[in-house]
Amino acid sequence: MPRSLIGTPKADLDTPALCLDIEAVEANIRRMANALRDSPVRLRPHAKTHKSPILAQMQLAAGAIGITCAKLGEAEVLAAAGIKDILIANQIIGTGKIARLVNLAAYTDVMVAVDDAANVAELDAASQAKGVRLRVLIEVDIGMARCGVFPGEPTLALAQRVVASPGLRFEGVMGYEGHTIFLKDPEERRQKTEASVKLLVDTADLLRRRCIPVPIVSSGGTGTYFITGRYPGVTEIQAGSYITMDGQYREEVGIDFAYGLTVLATVVSARDPDRAEIDAGLKTLTRDFGLPKVIDPPGWELVGLSEEHGHLRRAGGAPLKPGDKVEIVPNHGCTTINLHDEYHVIRRGMLEAVWPIAARGKIG
Amino acid sequence: MPRSLIGTPKADLDTPALCLDIEAVEANIRRMANALRDSPVRLRPHAKTHKSPILAQMQLAAGAIGITCAKLGEAEVLAAAGIKDILIANQIIGTGKIARLVNLAAYTDVMVAVDDAANVAELDAASQAKGVRLRVLIEVDIGMARCGVFPGEPTLALAQRVVASPGLRFEGVMGYEGHTIFLKDPEERRQKTEASVKLLVDTADLLRRRCIPVPIVSSGGTGTYFITGRYPGVTEIQAGSYITMDGQYREEVGIDFAYGLTVLATVVSARDPDRAEIDAGLKTLTRDFGLPKVIDPPGWELVGLSEEHGHLRRAGGAPLKPGDKVEIVPNHGCTTINLHDEYHVIRRGMLEAVWPIAARGKIG
Repeated sequence: MPRSLIGTPKADLDTPALCLDIEAVEANIRRMANALRDSPVRLRPHAKTHKSPILAQMQLAAGAIGITCAKLGEAEVLAAAGIKDILIANQIIGTGKIARLVNLAAYTDVMVAVDDAANVAELDAASQAKGVRLRVLIEVDIGMARCGVFPGEPTLALAQRVVASPGLRFEGVMGYEGHTIFLKDPEERRQKTEASVKLLVDTADLLRRRCIPVPIVSSGGTGTYFITGRYPGVTEIQAGSYITMDGQYREEVGIDFAYGLTVLATVVSARDPDRAEIDAGLKTLTRDFGLPKVIDPPGWELVGLSEEHGHLRRAGGAPLKPGDKVEIVPNHGCTTINLHDEYHVIRRGMLEAVWPIAARGKIG
Repeated sequence: MPRSLIGTPKADLDTPALCLDIEAVEANIRRMANALRDSPVRLRPHAKTHKSPILAQMQLAAGAIGITCAKLGEAEVLAAAGIKDILIANQIIGTGKIARLVNLAAYTDVMVAVDDAANVAELDAASQAKGVRLRVLIEVDIGMARCGVFPGEPTLALAQRVVASPGLRFEGVMGYEGHTIFLKDPEERRQKTEASVKLLVDTADLLRRRCIPVPIVSSGGTGTYFITGRYPGVTEIQAGSYITMDGQYREEVGIDFAYGLTVLATVVSARDPDRAEIDAGLKTLTRDFGLPKVIDPPGWELVGLSEEHGHLRRAGGAPLKPGDKVEIVPNHGCTTINLHDEYHVIRRGMLEAVWPIAARGKIG
């Protein structure tokens, strides 16, 4: 959008507009920093949520020790913005991608996750050929049953291979307790989260007993930061969603950060006083964990999303007419942000800046 | 991606890669043109599916009379590619968007849908101020209960307003029988589709009896082209998905066009011989109407999508290892294409071209 619109009141923005309440975002960044202040656990926030080097720089300025991302393409965007200490928290597989990775390692301190001996051998060969020493974390499956090697001896065996690889530097272990986040009962969630993280910490201790230094033990996300972030032996957490928050984490998990992300939409059709159609559908909002929530005007709820439309129903409040604005909190920030090219940065109700979502679509 | 990769075998592409089987796409374009050849009904294909001016030009070259799109931003991309006759099959609401629309009308033959008298008055005033005559179709609700005015007298009343607006040119009526497409029983689907389309045709006849010419009666999509495209009184259909096809239309509705769109992905983790994780999750594929389907290798199925990963399970065939390629047919082409920046155009198994998905993300 034209930068000449800076200063426009939020309500006058063209829609659909992805809006960042920058005061809420700043408060969320401070709050997470404060939560870890008296703890030895450090924060390496996950940029897969915001996909913005500007927001990553704000997190680093508040004390984050580095940035986490999901894809090599995201790491390249962060590196181009001058960020050095980047963890790609996934496996990088295949000749072409590995060539990109070791090239990135030549001018950053990028780290990568591994869970496979053949991949370790390829990374080692490519790193030696490039003349870099690539930093490596072993991903341990601590119960999610997705990627990762099993805790204990299988991790030790792979760590020994990494340690024996001249092109690689073993940095430690990581695991994600994603399977415990949505457990309804807080006590059960705490117990299962701690049981998962214990597998990771115990594995790190096993490696140390076998004389392998393990500087990094990385785990946790926004859903478990108050558990994993205090667990003895964990050195850093990878929370991402806390910065903007979303409906799933606030409503489903009860995480008490502020909503910093909304979508502003416009009513395009409203024949019936109890219904309205807005210009935001599945290309603007996602429903990964349920439908997004209308926060303004009161009394209206989103009851469905088709490709180009959102379907609103009135439970109270005044009828809407074409042209009326509707503000919606995404249910899943990460995938919603991925649909948009720009943040409309709002401070005190006015457009303060337009920030590119520079790593959007960097899926490879 | 670098254009120097032209000529690369499909299996060697970096992933995730959205691939267009251009021979299947060409066959689908020919097939739809042939299906309407002996009919008075014309095709105005919906570009919300492919979002590509190149594909739109291929459709026009095969006889399409113009292009349909969903958003003003898409129309602007089509216009920049030299396409003149564009239907925006939705309401354009608000001062800023209307200013963009009448500007577009100054150098194209853009048409827009209306369903509201106040919006008609605003479009008329803006068109007069700009010195253009904006082409208008009334959207009629023929049973979908989304946007549109009711058939019959309410449409007549709005048509009389349009006809009385010096800035507007009344072009006819449109309606979408989207509520009948997924009816399982083919005979029930035919009857309900015809009953819906009859409402639109009867409304056009009512207008004509009141001396309002109705050149355009537009309806239908890929799911009903063989019914609506033969219904007397319909003048054009808006089918879009037929060009690339997808799982929902082929598996759920039984539409027999060829699969022209796939996502190529790579196995990134495969600890267990009966499971594998690929590098394509919800930022690469959508599950609007169910999960996408693995077409290669045989014996594997996609059982879930998380944000960055697809979860595969083996029902037969050989185990997979990291680095193996997997090819997947999207379940919903329109929203899947919207996640990608480029088509990898494949002919006879080789990369022939890389085409930008120029209207991706043009949601406003």
